[in-house]
Amino acid sequence: MTLRSQLRLTALVPLFAVAACASHGPAAPTPAAVPAAPTPVATPAPAPPAIDTTVQPGRFDMGKMWTFENPPLDYFKAEYGFTPSQDWLVHVRLAALRLPNCTASFVSANGLVMSNHHCARESATAVSRPGEDLLTNGFYAERLTDERRVPDLYVDELVALHDVTAEVQAAEAGGQSEADRIAARDRKIREVEGRESATARLRCEVTTLYHGGRYSLYCYRRYSDVRLVFVPEKAIGYFGGDYDNFTYPRYDLDVSFFRVYDDSGAPLHPEAYFSWSESGAHEGDPVFVIGNPGSTSRLLTQAQLEYRRDRQYPFLLHLLGSRLQILGAYMNEHPETRPRLINDYFEISNTLKAFTGEEEGLRNATLFARKVAFERNFKRAVMANPALHDQYGGLWDQIAALRTQIAELAPAVNALNQGGLLRSQTLATALSLIRYAEAAAQGAPDSALSDMRTSVTSARIDPVLDARILGAQLEDASQLLGPGDPWVAEALSGRSPQAAAEAIVGGSLVPDSARRAGALAQPGDVATSTDPAIRLMRDLLPRLRQVFGRYRPMQEEEEAHTGELARALFAVYGTTIAPDATFTLRIADGVVRGYDYNGTQAPAFTTFYGLYDRHASNPGSEDWALPPRWQTPPPALVLGTPLDMVATNDIIGGNSGSPVVDKAGRLVGLVFDGNIESLPGEFIYAAETGRTVAVHSAAILEALRHVYGARRLVDEIEPAPPTR
Amino acid sequence: MTLRSQLRLTALVPLFAVAACASHGPAAPTPAAVPAAPTPVATPAPAPPAIDTTVQPGRFDMGKMWTFENPPLDYFKAEYGFTPSQDWLVHVRLAALRLPNCTASFVSANGLVMSNHHCARESATAVSRPGEDLLTNGFYAERLTDERRVPDLYVDELVALHDVTAEVQAAEAGGQSEADRIAARDRKIREVEGRESATARLRCEVTTLYHGGRYSLYCYRRYSDVRLVFVPEKAIGYFGGDYDNFTYPRYDLDVSFFRVYDDSGAPLHPEAYFSWSESGAHEGDPVFVIGNPGSTSRLLTQAQLEYRRDRQYPFLLHLLGSRLQILGAYMNEHPETRPRLINDYFEISNTLKAFTGEEEGLRNATLFARKVAFERNFKRAVMANPALHDQYGGLWDQIAALRTQIAELAPAVNALNQGGLLRSQTLATALSLIRYAEAAAQGAPDSALSDMRTSVTSARIDPVLDARILGAQLEDASQLLGPGDPWVAEALSGRSPQAAAEAIVGGSLVPDSARRAGALAQPGDVATSTDPAIRLMRDLLPRLRQVFGRYRPMQEEEEAHTGELARALFAVYGTTIAPDATFTLRIADGVVRGYDYNGTQAPAFTTFYGLYDRHASNPGSEDWALPPRWQTPPPALVLGTPLDMVATNDIIGGNSGSPVVDKAGRLVGLVFDGNIESLPGEFIYAAETGRTVAVHSAAILEALRHVYGARRLVDEIEPAPPTR
Repeated sequence: MTLRSQLRLTALVPLFAVAACASHGPAAPTPAAVPAAPTPVATPAPAPPAIDTTVQPGRFDMGKMWTFENPPLDYFKAEYGFTPSQDWLVHVRLAALRLPNCTASFVSANGLVMSNHHCARESATAVSRPGEDLLTNGFYAERLTDERRVPDLYVDELVALHDVTAEVQAAEAGGQSEADRIAARDRKIREVEGRESATARLRCEVTTLYHGGRYSLYCYRRYSDVRLVFVPEKAIGYFGGDYDNFTYPRYDLDVSFFRVYDDSGAPLHPEAYFSWSESGAHEGDPVFVIGNPGSTSRLLTQAQLEYRRDRQYPFLLHLLGSRLQILGAYMNEHPETRPRLINDYFEISNTLKAFTGEEEGLRNATLFARKVAFERNFKRAVMANPALHDQYGGLWDQIAALRTQIAELAPAVNALNQGGLLRSQTLATALSLIRYAEAAAQGAPDSALSDMRTSVTSARIDPVLDARILGAQLEDASQLLGPGDPWVAEALSGRSPQAAAEAIVGGSLVPDSARRAGALAQPGDVATSTDPAIRLMRDLLPRLRQVFGRYRPMQEEEEAHTGELARALFAVYGTTIAPDATFTLRIADGVVRGYDYNGTQAPAFTTFYGLYDRHASNPGSEDWALPPRWQTPPPALVLGTPLDMVATNDIIGGNSGSPVVDKAGRLVGLVFDGNIESLPGEFIYAAETGRTVAVHSAAILEALRHVYGARRLVDEIEPAPPTR
Repeated sequence: MTLRSQLRLTALVPLFAVAACASHGPAAPTPAAVPAAPTPVATPAPAPPAIDTTVQPGRFDMGKMWTFENPPLDYFKAEYGFTPSQDWLVHVRLAALRLPNCTASFVSANGLVMSNHHCARESATAVSRPGEDLLTNGFYAERLTDERRVPDLYVDELVALHDVTAEVQAAEAGGQSEADRIAARDRKIREVEGRESATARLRCEVTTLYHGGRYSLYCYRRYSDVRLVFVPEKAIGYFGGDYDNFTYPRYDLDVSFFRVYDDSGAPLHPEAYFSWSESGAHEGDPVFVIGNPGSTSRLLTQAQLEYRRDRQYPFLLHLLGSRLQILGAYMNEHPETRPRLINDYFEISNTLKAFTGEEEGLRNATLFARKVAFERNFKRAVMANPALHDQYGGLWDQIAALRTQIAELAPAVNALNQGGLLRSQTLATALSLIRYAEAAAQGAPDSALSDMRTSVTSARIDPVLDARILGAQLEDASQLLGPGDPWVAEALSGRSPQAAAEAIVGGSLVPDSARRAGALAQPGDVATSTDPAIRLMRDLLPRLRQVFGRYRPMQEEEEAHTGELARALFAVYGTTIAPDATFTLRIADGVVRGYDYNGTQAPAFTTFYGLYDRHASNPGSEDWALPPRWQTPPPALVLGTPLDMVATNDIIGGNSGSPVVDKAGRLVGLVFDGNIESLPGEFIYAAETGRTVAVHSAAILEALRHVYGARRLVDEIEPAPPTR
């Protein structure tokens, strides 16, 4: 779940977005990256720990997501006694694939593709026929003709890549202002992509590496006939559910199979595929993850990291924790709402888990000292070079100054921001209605109006729950801005936050979809409406525009500085440092290895025995339930077979479904998650206890053979017996 | 392992004692409770976190180790809807037993006694016959006549108890000075014990509760014919070894059976025994642990806790970590030394694990704030009562002032202290030799001399390893006292700590047992010896006496203040608060319940499936190996049977072997450990994630039946089928 491409990013947008208005209104708050301020609601933040200046950065603190342009062959040789040949590199690159939100790979000569169960969720639902629920019950195509084409699904194969840095940077250099330069660069990128795509008859994309230190042209062959072959039942494919997500020891058969067909409608014979290693990897074996990590933030400066640690996370964790508590209590009181709310609950709870893990990474004194030490060395190198000093020497201070400005604005941004799962839908929908009315009055084109209408009509508001959320939101606002703030004072009007919230939601037409439709039909009345929610948002709107109008340029300036910093990094370290993740193909080396955990050691792999232990230890629980065919272990299933395993490879969201391969290029595992200790990987690669979690190759064959009787698939992927 | 009576205390004494000299010399350093100072060796301690003054103490922060004099019946009723009758209380008290270092209980009408495997280690070794290794291979007496009497083993049953506070405190009140009072009290205690033991024909002991707030007379019936009936193989009785010690999820059959025989040599028919619950407890069930918790430190003041957190633990953890590293590296370089050193290694490593857990408890801002909040409320109550105010109001400041004095002395105490596992044996043995020579010159009686001789002759010193340890010790001393300190300067004599250590150990006769024997034979030469180790210790001795001569009265004063504080606590809260543990019988209530762990949930119980998972996941490892009869699961063994379980009961070292009983007084489990989160229990009972770990009653029966075929035992304890 963790590693579905950009999952954590996309999950954040709805959580923190200002509903649907963001992309329409001229002064709409930006949907992403809402900053956060310290909240007096939470425990006072502890004094920042002293930084131990004797700590040195780790060699790979910036990560191991190596590009295929610059794999560190000398390091591989020194570390593993193994220098991948060009053939090896081309082979694993071509055998690896990119799904729209995951990684996958060819695993047979007949176009069979493997990825995760959680990457096939939408596909299983999409190909379910009336009366079927393949996501829950699983699917196996007994015959080739039973395979089901997944509408709109495609996979991309990276068939060519080359450096276009010189061309793009030359275009960039021509601009007079920063805006000119960005525009010139973007024009050039589009030009290169168009030209190269036409020439190569491929989908060519310029990938910005090192935030603009390098530009690489990646050309993909797209396969658009992708059919579902096998997906296990959700209960085994997502065993442990949201509880076990991001954790290890783990017992999850998170696998799915697709098949790519060629233009003639026959199974594709791919240029390259991974042959299967049944015995798989053992503890201590070097392994390589070939996949598409989504994004990381390892370039953040000390000032930015401190802001996150001391301000952003405390507020976010408070916000998530508060709303989770409200949602949980509400579902307990009203069990009939559980089916409707449980997904929101788990989305918040998983985001809370992920952020807690990231925050703990920043609170870890040694990890933080390593980040600071890296920055110290990096800065020293910049300062020692006159040209770099002139160009980049002021960046750290500029970024720190920006963060100070943002910190001042943050209470208003956090208190006034509307929309998303964590804030009142009554207020957010009222805001959409006001914007719609404004746009209609200004004669906006119907295409824009229609989207805005949809965002108003599609809201489904539970007034009791929404009043509780609004109560907490007003409480937060009152603490962030003080009870004397004009908007807080207007909202409260002398009432307690909860009483005010109940009066606003209860007195408003907004929660009622029929009355809302009526209001949409009379947009002219919105400007004078006395509805408490509409009036409150109408009074807020100018201030909202003013606050976000100040905030957005700060964000843009910070982004520009980050780009400059990345170029400085590249100037100092070149390709010896791997670039931040960009959802493009990378090769990450590592070793299969257990780790210290829970006062003891987590083993390098788990077994089917552990699956049955976790199941039997949680009787009656939905999350550790087993599908019928699994409930009694089939007699032929060898329970001691490795099920999941851990390795030190550097991964992040987007790596879901990545093949894990050994030095021989054989498939030994299938990445599906990271452990809880890997969450600081957003900022730093720390292999002490952070681990990639993968399904072991032996488990997949064992289950296909003895649980699913999937003979056809087994024959297709089974390794040939060793020749004598 | 954790919970063997006083294990953590007894483990500490050899670690930190000043060899055997402590109890002989007039100015010998005290063996227990060596204080610690901050060490510049470790990372600079982070700034103490701000204390959140809005935190309130938990209702049971001081624990739930209730006495049988004052079980909180109203609370039990309110919490569990269950009021134990007097009969119930007497029954569980009589069925519970105390071993010399553990708890046990009667589990049949024929005197069968159950405890832990780890409480039966010495017994298994003691009854092994030539060629047998019952500790490793286990033991089962097929017939009654096969049961083997364990030499010197006894169990005590608490048959009577009454309050003697008035009598003891009256004696105490007569004293003129503090020393008088203590002497008068101790005389009275001995008098009461003698009188009551004679009257009741029992072993009566006055137990000091609330550090003197209450005195209770506990009279025990002692059974001295105790025979070993069953002990499983060490590999299953201590499955997971030192790694899994103090942890959960756990898969350990930590059980043993003895039988008590009466004076006629026939199996005893005890007054009370626990009948067996085969189905055992389920998640959410209230359960009661009847056992003998060894000791806790829950009365420590904020100043004392801060000292531990900021000074004592950082140094202790450094010391343990440094020596562990030396020992580990040495065993790796010299694998042949492993059998000799591995027990020391694990003793240090387990102590490190325990202290790390305790330290983390103190670093947990919420737990610390709860301790502070408790103290605030307690202090406020004392100050509000004029009599209490006069008597006790100054205690907190007095204790804080003492800790400030101790902090000043601590570097010298830590740097100069000698002996134990963590310091050079060459120096410690040289010190013993000097003291022996002194005592001999002063004409000490031969009884004293003979013990001192033994402590010199019994030392076995590995000079290479000892020089490394001495090197680290001199490095620590140099950092604690500065290189200009006279003793440090003499020891180093311009050399590096490691070079100096090699010269001292290499140049000394002390490591050589034959030469040591020669020196013992000529005690008159010791005073003028030029042996580098002897000379160094001879020069140190006056200073050692001076430093510990200052330190010991501070400790005594602190102890006296702690007693006063406990009396103040008792005056304010009476028996609503349970007293600190005293290795006497307590009843601790709790609930079978999983907990948040590792980003997910630890289940309320594990199963035999998990045992096989942990075994199969760690192939080739000694710690997770299984005995031959377990390696292939016997076909009749139901793998989904609960194996270990967790409950919220408050336990500590000494509770090993405690019965876990349900409301019906039936046996549902057997305590054998606490999880890693329970380690802060030294200071505070925090049931959020701290748990008692027990073997589930169903697992014991299942294993006896289907793995051991122990029909005779099963018939004896098997619950009768329900009558219709």
